Amino acid sequence: MEQSYDLVVIGSGPAGQKGAICAAKMRKKVAIVERPDRLGGVSLHTGTIPSKTLREAILYLSGFRQRSFYGRDYVLQEIISLPDLSLRVRKVLEHELQVLRSQLRRNGVTVLQGSARFTGPHSLSLETAEGPQAVQAENVLIACGTRPARNPNIPCDGKRIFDSDQLIALDVELPRTAIVVGAGVIGLEYASMLTALGIKTTLVDQRPTLLDFVDREIIDALTYHLRGRGTIFRLGEQVSAVEADAGRVLARLESGKTMIADALFYTVGRQANTDQLDVPAAGLAGDARGRVSVDGQFRTAVPHIFAAGDVIGFPALASTSMEQGRRAALAMFGRSDLARELPMPYGIYTIPEISMVGRSEQELTANKVRYEVGVARYEELAKSQILGDHLGLLKLLFDPDSLKLLGVHVLGERAAEIVHIGQAVLAFGGTIEYFRDAVFNYPTMAEAFKVAALDGLNKLG
Amino acid sequence: MEQSYDLVVIGSGPAGQKGAICAAKMRKKVAIVERPDRLGGVSLHTGTIPSKTLREAILYLSGFRQRSFYGRDYVLQEIISLPDLSLRVRKVLEHELQVLRSQLRRNGVTVLQGSARFTGPHSLSLETAEGPQAVQAENVLIACGTRPARNPNIPCDGKRIFDSDQLIALDVELPRTAIVVGAGVIGLEYASMLTALGIKTTLVDQRPTLLDFVDREIIDALTYHLRGRGTIFRLGEQVSAVEADAGRVLARLESGKTMIADALFYTVGRQANTDQLDVPAAGLAGDARGRVSVDGQFRTAVPHIFAAGDVIGFPALASTSMEQGRRAALAMFGRSDLARELPMPYGIYTIPEISMVGRSEQELTANKVRYEVGVARYEELAKSQILGDHLGLLKLLFDPDSLKLLGVHVLGERAAEIVHIGQAVLAFGGTIEYFRDAVFNYPTMAEAFKVAALDGLNKLG
Repeated sequence: MEQSYDLVVIGSGPAGQKGAICAAKMRKKVAIVERPDRLGGVSLHTGTIPSKTLREAILYLSGFRQRSFYGRDYVLQEIISLPDLSLRVRKVLEHELQVLRSQLRRNGVTVLQGSARFTGPHSLSLETAEGPQAVQAENVLIACGTRPARNPNIPCDGKRIFDSDQLIALDVELPRTAIVVGAGVIGLEYASMLTALGIKTTLVDQRPTLLDFVDREIIDALTYHLRGRGTIFRLGEQVSAVEADAGRVLARLESGKTMIADALFYTVGRQANTDQLDVPAAGLAGDARGRVSVDGQFRTAVPHIFAAGDVIGFPALASTSMEQGRRAALAMFGRSDLARELPMPYGIYTIPEISMVGRSEQELTANKVRYEVGVARYEELAKSQILGDHLGLLKLLFDPDSLKLLGVHVLGERAAEIVHIGQAVLAFGGTIEYFRDAVFNYPTMAEAFKVAALDGLNKLG
Repeated sequence: MEQSYDLVVIGSGPAGQKGAICAAKMRKKVAIVERPDRLGGVSLHTGTIPSKTLREAILYLSGFRQRSFYGRDYVLQEIISLPDLSLRVRKVLEHELQVLRSQLRRNGVTVLQGSARFTGPHSLSLETAEGPQAVQAENVLIACGTRPARNPNIPCDGKRIFDSDQLIALDVELPRTAIVVGAGVIGLEYASMLTALGIKTTLVDQRPTLLDFVDREIIDALTYHLRGRGTIFRLGEQVSAVEADAGRVLARLESGKTMIADALFYTVGRQANTDQLDVPAAGLAGDARGRVSVDGQFRTAVPHIFAAGDVIGFPALASTSMEQGRRAALAMFGRSDLARELPMPYGIYTIPEISMVGRSEQELTANKVRYEVGVARYEELAKSQILGDHLGLLKLLFDPDSLKLLGVHVLGERAAEIVHIGQAVLAFGGTIEYFRDAVFNYPTMAEAFKVAALDGLNKLG
């Protein structure tokens, strides 16, 4: 029997979940399609959740945060075993899966297990365990996500040479040396974890600079700290060939250099899964990387088909994908009045972590907007002494005349949490006087806002 | 030679420091008086800083946060030694002292070592190592702080029976059982630490309820968790006598009960140090606990004498004291235009920690203000799974008609940090729609605001 829905969501990652639940709350009949055992998508199974759990486990088990007290050689467990790490990943994953299932159930979202492909603009065919199933959809939200892009020069075998979805499945011995190819968000997050584990890591990227959307001072500080812990950067270098041999990996660079390590992680680029959906049958086309174009409401060229999450490209963060999914659902059912344009934060879980909201110095400079800077160094904060983070910094950019806050850039412990304080002030059009006048709990990292505001105000004389 | 200053600050704790620096920034001639080796005050030497450092060290070394992964018996170090704990306290203390010294130097604040007492409204005599020294002051800021109140029934010896300034100096073996007398902020913070260390703890207070200024649901949850970890509460009970005998402590309650433990911590009340300042010579008087009354600008009955910090009583938190000191300095030099009334947060470093800003349910109910509640349980958040905190909750109180935010109450990991997100929204008069529409980094604890806002909005149907 063919089933028909107000909305069929393809993919159950952050964008799909939030889109489906938002539509269900508007009393729409909603189905979400996901392959068996993949509920939650890449975010839950191989992406955000496992990598952030792994990161926290590494920070703890490696004694990383304790080194300022006990010296840089301090390691909590002499040999950190992979079961230690994967136990935690498994526990968190199972719990999150349960939360997601119950959320979908509570909101009356039907979960269809199988692989979907379009058979027309309003019709889909599902490949299920019980054979094919036809589904009619008034609206569709494509939230099918991405997979690691393949590179014929880099034969990922999941043993010595890993793509960005395979690190989590790591069940061999920890390597002593590693090469990370690709210094984007994923590459830098992985390099941070490897380095924290004491693995000698080399990061290669063909681009001459790191994360161009992040404030330069923050990137410089991150680079400095990663170098200080032994990471080697090879920027502006391209990998021409990789081979695994006798338990080691050999990577050749275009420049003629040769690098040898115990393992190689390839984190360059992601390929959208639209190629598996037969989007042309719906009147759509993906770009070279399979990505679909959308307008400001996440509507594709076909008016009743929307797309959200990694499939539409940058920034491809779980946080932004959730909001995209929700906005798409609001737009398709005529409730965009419930969405507002607000400053968008970014969180990057390197070690130390990075977060930012609003504009950067390079952006303001390019747009010829005058600004002044107020900085708090974490070493000035009691809380960072207590937590053992002496490295971080928080930077406020503001208008020197009106004192309006323009941007917040944070590197260090809890950066992704405290940036939201600045985000709220930014959203309400506040000035940095707010931080000067507000009382902050003591000791907290949040106090950095006050220290930075006072620094900024001092500069105005 | 007699010296004369625009402002003499008595005491170098949070209130004194910030008052002195604020005045110095206005190009005033400022001196701060402190006894030798006590720069930073009680906050730095026996209060906030040591206790919060100890707390963080205990959380780490006891493996407390890891028990959700490894079971409730997990302890990182089989026997946590006191040197482990005090090493960290010493390191943080030394660093903070350095930061403070350099801040005072940079701002040109003169530090006078000695004990001060008034000889007239504008004159002070300092007892220094080189003999007495006379000082003239255009204005005075009394920020002399408090000391533990003495109770003749409780003979604190610093060996088995400790007052709230002696715990830090603990250099004996860790007790296996403990009694904490006084369930105020300090008592609850200490009981939390003792319990986290696996010490069987009994908390006694003559009041029938805990922390009346905190939301009841938060207190109920805290009590539940402390009980779950073995804390025994004896509320509405008064201690009539305490004796140390044969290495143990025996406490008798008015109700006839007898309790025996390895150690007893007496955390009832603090006595202001005004009795050592001869305040009557300046025309002032302290109350029974030595506290000085001030107006909204922290001015005492004598117009050029201000008071701030613990010496003026509730809330007696480092955070609020800093702001009081700053406001006092602004008021005395006619710059109160630089201060604004903003919602005041409270942070209580129990385990789990508590923080709040704005109004509570009991307050709103008493004032007959209609409100609705939105709750996020930490167990719903990916980040709290990752950090191993399943206990916390965040509660938003809001106006059901205008949706304006009225109060934020948080229990759990990072509560004292993330409450500042709600504080900003409250300060700008925002509604809970802000949390619904804002993008939050994922995974973070900050996300709790979004979960709670959606819960609240759902209740409105």
